[in-house]
Amino acid sequence: MPEVPKDGSQLWSKGGALDPAIHAFTVGEDYLTDLALVPHDCVASAAHARMLSRAGLLDPKDADALVAALGELREEALAGRFAILPEQEDAHTALEAALVARVGDAGKRIHLGRSRNDQVITALRLLMRERLADLAGRAADLAGAFLAFAQAHAHEAMPGYTHLRPAMPSSFGQWAAAFAEGLLEGLADARALDAKLDRCPLGAAAGFGVPLPIDRELTASLLGFSGVQRNPIDVQNSRGRHELALVQWIGQLALVLEKFLWDVALYSTPEFGYLDVPEAFTTGSSIMPQKRNPDVVELARATCRSLRGAAHTVEQLAGGMPSNYHRDFQLLKKPLLGALGDAAAWLSILQALVPALQVNAERAREACGDELYAAHAAFLLVKEGWTFRDAYREVAAELAAKAFHPDRAALKSTHTGGTANLALDAAAAELAAHRAWIDGRKAAQASTVHALLETTP
Amino acid sequence: MPEVPKDGSQLWSKGGALDPAIHAFTVGEDYLTDLALVPHDCVASAAHARMLSRAGLLDPKDADALVAALGELREEALAGRFAILPEQEDAHTALEAALVARVGDAGKRIHLGRSRNDQVITALRLLMRERLADLAGRAADLAGAFLAFAQAHAHEAMPGYTHLRPAMPSSFGQWAAAFAEGLLEGLADARALDAKLDRCPLGAAAGFGVPLPIDRELTASLLGFSGVQRNPIDVQNSRGRHELALVQWIGQLALVLEKFLWDVALYSTPEFGYLDVPEAFTTGSSIMPQKRNPDVVELARATCRSLRGAAHTVEQLAGGMPSNYHRDFQLLKKPLLGALGDAAAWLSILQALVPALQVNAERAREACGDELYAAHAAFLLVKEGWTFRDAYREVAAELAAKAFHPDRAALKSTHTGGTANLALDAAAAELAAHRAWIDGRKAAQASTVHALLETTP
Amino acid sequence: MPEVPKDGSQLWSKGGALDPAIHAFTVGEDYLTDLALVPHDCVASAAHARMLSRAGLLDPKDADALVAALGELREEALAGRFAILPEQEDAHTALEAALVARVGDAGKRIHLGRSRNDQVITALRLLMRERLADLAGRAADLAGAFLAFAQAHAHEAMPGYTHLRPAMPSSFGQWAAAFAEGLLEGLADARALDAKLDRCPLGAAAGFGVPLPIDRELTASLLGFSGVQRNPIDVQNSRGRHELALVQWIGQLALVLEKFLWDVALYSTPEFGYLDVPEAFTTGSSIMPQKRNPDVVELARATCRSLRGAAHTVEQLAGGMPSNYHRDFQLLKKPLLGALGDAAAWLSILQALVPALQVNAERAREACGDELYAAHAAFLLVKEGWTFRDAYREVAAELAAKAFHPDRAALKSTHTGGTANLALDAAAAELAAHRAWIDGRKAAQASTVHALLETTP
Amino acid sequence: MPEVPKDGSQLWSKGGALDPAIHAFTVGEDYLTDLALVPHDCVASAAHARMLSRAGLLDPKDADALVAALGELREEALAGRFAILPEQEDAHTALEAALVARVGDAGKRIHLGRSRNDQVITALRLLMRERLADLAGRAADLAGAFLAFAQAHAHEAMPGYTHLRPAMPSSFGQWAAAFAEGLLEGLADARALDAKLDRCPLGAAAGFGVPLPIDRELTASLLGFSGVQRNPIDVQNSRGRHELALVQWIGQLALVLEKFLWDVALYSTPEFGYLDVPEAFTTGSSIMPQKRNPDVVELARATCRSLRGAAHTVEQLAGGMPSNYHRDFQLLKKPLLGALGDAAAWLSILQALVPALQVNAERAREACGDELYAAHAAFLLVKEGWTFRDAYREVAAELAAKAFHPDRAALKSTHTGGTANLALDAAAAELAAHRAWIDGRKAAQASTVHALLETTP
Repeated sequence: MPEVPKDGSQLWSKGGALDPAIHAFTVGEDYLTDLALVPHDCVASAAHARMLSRAGLLDPKDADALVAALGELREEALAGRFAILPEQEDAHTALEAALVARVGDAGKRIHLGRSRNDQVITALRLLMRERLADLAGRAADLAGAFLAFAQAHAHEAMPGYTHLRPAMPSSFGQWAAAFAEGLLEGLADARALDAKLDRCPLGAAAGFGVPLPIDRELTASLLGFSGVQRNPIDVQNSRGRHELALVQWIGQLALVLEKFLWDVALYSTPEFGYLDVPEAFTTGSSIMPQKRNPDVVELARATCRSLRGAAHTVEQLAGGMPSNYHRDFQLLKKPLLGALGDAAAWLSILQALVPALQVNAERAREACGDELYAAHAAFLLVKEGWTFRDAYREVAAELAAKAFHPDRAALKSTHTGGTANLALDAAAAELAAHRAWIDGRKAAQASTVHALLETTP
Repeated sequence: MPEVPKDGSQLWSKGGALDPAIHAFTVGEDYLTDLALVPHDCVASAAHARMLSRAGLLDPKDADALVAALGELREEALAGRFAILPEQEDAHTALEAALVARVGDAGKRIHLGRSRNDQVITALRLLMRERLADLAGRAADLAGAFLAFAQAHAHEAMPGYTHLRPAMPSSFGQWAAAFAEGLLEGLADARALDAKLDRCPLGAAAGFGVPLPIDRELTASLLGFSGVQRNPIDVQNSRGRHELALVQWIGQLALVLEKFLWDVALYSTPEFGYLDVPEAFTTGSSIMPQKRNPDVVELARATCRSLRGAAHTVEQLAGGMPSNYHRDFQLLKKPLLGALGDAAAWLSILQALVPALQVNAERAREACGDELYAAHAAFLLVKEGWTFRDAYREVAAELAAKAFHPDRAALKSTHTGGTANLALDAAAAELAAHRAWIDGRKAAQASTVHALLETTP
Repeated sequence: MPEVPKDGSQLWSKGGALDPAIHAFTVGEDYLTDLALVPHDCVASAAHARMLSRAGLLDPKDADALVAALGELREEALAGRFAILPEQEDAHTALEAALVARVGDAGKRIHLGRSRNDQVITALRLLMRERLADLAGRAADLAGAFLAFAQAHAHEAMPGYTHLRPAMPSSFGQWAAAFAEGLLEGLADARALDAKLDRCPLGAAAGFGVPLPIDRELTASLLGFSGVQRNPIDVQNSRGRHELALVQWIGQLALVLEKFLWDVALYSTPEFGYLDVPEAFTTGSSIMPQKRNPDVVELARATCRSLRGAAHTVEQLAGGMPSNYHRDFQLLKKPLLGALGDAAAWLSILQALVPALQVNAERAREACGDELYAAHAAFLLVKEGWTFRDAYREVAAELAAKAFHPDRAALKSTHTGGTANLALDAAAAELAAHRAWIDGRKAAQASTVHALLETTP
Repeated sequence: MPEVPKDGSQLWSKGGALDPAIHAFTVGEDYLTDLALVPHDCVASAAHARMLSRAGLLDPKDADALVAALGELREEALAGRFAILPEQEDAHTALEAALVARVGDAGKRIHLGRSRNDQVITALRLLMRERLADLAGRAADLAGAFLAFAQAHAHEAMPGYTHLRPAMPSSFGQWAAAFAEGLLEGLADARALDAKLDRCPLGAAAGFGVPLPIDRELTASLLGFSGVQRNPIDVQNSRGRHELALVQWIGQLALVLEKFLWDVALYSTPEFGYLDVPEAFTTGSSIMPQKRNPDVVELARATCRSLRGAAHTVEQLAGGMPSNYHRDFQLLKKPLLGALGDAAAWLSILQALVPALQVNAERAREACGDELYAAHAAFLLVKEGWTFRDAYREVAAELAAKAFHPDRAALKSTHTGGTANLALDAAAAELAAHRAWIDGRKAAQASTVHALLETTP
């Protein structure tokens, strides 16, 4: 349990004492989770200081001192050398205390024209945009891995299943390309989500603005936003809504990848036997010497589900409230940061897994029995003039009589996406475009930080 | 319980009999819910017939007959004159039966090169895009209603709350504009979501393509899609993923509007008293003659929560499965269509409610006590050279001594979004752009249908 | 859209007119879903009338007339001959109108000392207890089917899987008995849940009681409750809480049965091949003549997930509110009744499926390779004095050298629950005790109705 | 990232090397979360050792040595002096390593006849039963606090609300007693839940039993279970199902307490003003000197929602899988332990809050206007012979004419639960019975540990 501050070190302290248990309950784990916010709070605070200075609300020398100190503090935070004391409650209090310690009274001037409410939203929004670009980069790498796998195994047949029953001829290439296409959809979504987050909340203060001539457009621009989230009440109301959108975006990736992981779990059973999970991705049993269990696959699959659980927690916290700030929203930070961290680790491990999967091409080819070609054969009859329904019944009769011998060579799907035309080039081109966007975002984020903290304005 | 077909009328029938209870369980309510799909299935089937004809897989005369019949059937379905018999199981079987009844053998040729799996996904995707445009239109109208309300009450003060405690001066205009801005964000999301859905699944067949020279690009174009969802496995895997994205989009609107509805429920209590819900939106009590209960507000608020529940059902069904089609996905249709219908009714009733709300301007103005200006006053001291922390403590002391008398006239927020600068014009401009997009989508959808069904190709 | 009442027929009407769209939105589908409540409302109303009469608040002749009419109306409702007009909003208004039509002014006296708020909770609680007993009965029958299956296949070996990899010897009997034991746990839970619901809410009125000498203990007793839910505010606050408990109870059954259904889906693939789903439980493909798809299994599995979705909707509506009644709770009825109906159909179809499953005993026996006995063999070495860790490594070495030849006869699990000691008798005894409880509940419910409605008091 | 073990220290190691990233992903945070399991694993392991010894599978001296060491290790774990190394993966590996270090080869013999699969379930079940008793104790204390509050304020009037509108006369006593009654229901549920968990899983091994003459009834008895969870597959299948039941039980408490917290948040606004949250439970604003925010109330309210989120995560992980063990279940531990810890802190803070709440009796009394007595007055007319509907319309007319002057003294609710008859004694008696059960459980748990670890058998 954190120590209780004795001397009123909270931003709002008027000198009363706090009960330790109550203090511990209100602070929760913020003094730990908030560490992730500090670098972003430094950046946002620097923009705020520059704006105050240009608006005549802060002495330019104070602004210079503050920005210099914020640059140092950000470096320290990134290096793990910045601590938030439990009695400081949160990142914002700790940061202001650190500024006062370094630059004296100027530190006390940084909070003019803002509130912790818009301060935390701004830091979170910067964090969310940074993490979104990072996760999108990982998803792009993973999509690339699927495309490479599809290319390498484009012509290796495997049964296509419906209802978990062998249905039609497919291929390892067609299978892997499916996940690439699903991820490409997620990457397009990422760009839309970034646009949704691309409005600066700073200046909303406690949710109703401030009676000072602050320049919200300037801070927005300094922080790399295309525009301002104008309405201060909507700024507060978007707390939770944006977190949910981000975690649900991860959830869409999880819907794509959960199917891949389930497929691997199935196809690597001895009964299916189309894939081998390399030993490095398995563990053993404490009592069964013969076992190699695909633990990585299972844990990654379970992560898809736990990420949905995290989204539900965020949703629970985001909903059910009147407008404006409520302390309830403090609890949003932990599931958000947890989900972001889990998603990053999960995408990385999948990126290692995909190229390591071993294909048992022969076993899969042998599993492609004649009956998989039944629908194809019916289609051929149609080309000869049969109606489809009659052709369907004819082939069914041949199958029943064990007199069905399809000509496999004639049964190739050459349309877009068919086994003989996977259209991997088109997917690669889309991926390249997404990568360019991701690289652009990362560069822009870096240059925003550099312009604010490492050069004089 | 539906009748069991005696004569093998299912598309897949090979002549065996079905147990009635089992048939009833497998059909479920599909023969009712599928009615919503019929018009879209007619359109998609017409595009499929045209494509087959151009690819040499269907006689042009057959294609003409099919398209003509599909045009009639669509009209009948829209007029409520098309029925799906329980023994027909679903819309697709019923449609094929109706075609055979009208155009004979040509009706049996329509199913060449497709499966019910891609047929239902295509109909659903057309339906989802149509409903998305419709819901976006309703959300735009509602945003307009909020902007009009904000304009009308831009200068009427009300307390701004944080933690449900009076915090700072705000206004009815600032309050209403918040919901407009939230909805504008949702409208931008709608455009991204439509882009996500803007890929044609037709041609994926059962999930692995077909060995026929079908032209997927052509059907995509005829159906108004910008492109093809290339990978057939991803087509099947997107079942549920897309439904979820749509219902979660509605959920984002619900997060915006739930706060509005909660605010109205609170602000219209006698204790707050800032708003009156007009009598037409209230009902009475069966035992308390004095009551006028804001039932519409409460039901609309609860709808925000039940829409989240529907999204959870869709999510449950979308997740947890290996790749490809499983019959589990049949259950997706009911929660999807339920949520779409509920959302439309809910947006309409809100559109009626917003302009009808009555503002008690005087009561709200009186509730804006001097203490709301405390932070503002502290900011003013800062402009005179105090540090913010010292100013904060000074005002706190004045408040404690009941010696705090702020100059309200001097305490106006003029920055973007402040009570003296709501920036409604910028919101109106964004809204107009979204409306143009919505109108464009609706026109494009209508013209796609017209080109396919009401003109000769 | 329902017609608007012209003449103020609502219980609370004071004569004003209603907007049709608003009326439609507030009524929702209540006039349909409430039909399920009518029989229970008749019973509860009869108890209320008897109590009023004994308390001197209603003329005994009026009570007799009311009870007689309620008996008739209940019969009509059960026979599907009772309709709720949309303008009547709900079951309670319709019932009072029907009573006035039959017994004149006495009908207007029935609502003394109650409110629709406690009226609906009482009807719902009676409904929930009745449905719980019914569902428990179905679950008991299903448990019986699993036990019979386990008995019949007690000695037929099949591989036991962990991580979806063959792990140890098991049997069809051990497999089926698992679901029986899971359901027995659910049946014990049912009894606890019934005890939770076994408190009568009638008399809470709008949530604060009434200033009349009503006898809540008497109505509780007449309605078959062991006691009174004393606090009227808790009565209102339990709205949603109880519905959730019931749907989550179904969810616990679903967690048991989902695993069974997943197993069947897997074990009936050609790749595993341990089970055949009989043709009556399968359907075909519209384009693949060779397919027999286990649709019933898949739909039943998906129902497990949609039932969880329904619980989430109930939870969304139950949570997030201050005390007392809010109209939000109206929306609880639809997901509750939907889940109850779905659960009944789902348990029935499973009861038909279990005995119909066909076991491929030979295929399963052949799949039990020597390596499944590896852990068992290691245990034997331990009995000879090895440490388990050393034995484990020894067997691993033998396996690697393909020199592992276990003595299967010596490797039987005879402890409770082991393949050689399934303890089916103990399960059957538990089941019999649960059945006795269920039968007792059903008999008590029937006799409560009979005593109230079919005999003179 | 944890270090990779170089020397094959995992229970299943056969000597190969592990990739560090893969190892880190598979271990996750188990080496931290598992610390909570260690004391319970020590107890379960001691019972296992005693059973092996009595069954002739372990030398009695080895058993003595193991039990002695387990007693020490349990003490060390409780004192925070037991560490799990990342390379040890989990509690079970670490415990076995510690045993080998202390008692040599005997340590290698402890794993005979069990698997980590039943080992972890047994430890979890002991933990769950212990925590359930602890949480029930806290809930009982809280129920006691509500009863004391109700007693102290039994006769202080406050308006009763429906639809957030003043409806009928109520009292602070009636209000507080509602939460006591809701918690009593939860305590009864706790007893049923403990019965559900009261079956010993040990001996299920990997899910199919072991070919050794283990005595499952003995271990069950030594561990304080009433019986054995017989079927080993059901043991594995209950993983997640039981965790969910426990977290959903907490969720039922949260549904009760969320309403209390929402009420406090509302009733302590200046607009309602019926309650004051003492300063110790509030915090200030960083920019608004006048604010005292009820942060503790808001955080406790949000905890109700985040606990539901945790249940969703558990549910996601528990569902959607075939029978038997999958590594997916590893992820269950973190949300379970998180929810248990959060629930304990939350119940404690509420226990402090309830007696500290300050009642503004006069303000509340003044808020009870004549109109609250309208329904009551209508009831009186009925006693004089009016029908209720006519009386309702008469009072409505008087109200409209401002001619309604009720006789408050005549309008008292004396039935069970009414404001004049809160029946607190009955609640106190139920509470005492629950406390006795809780004390009994705690004593039984302590004596089980004592018998196993601190005495010779």
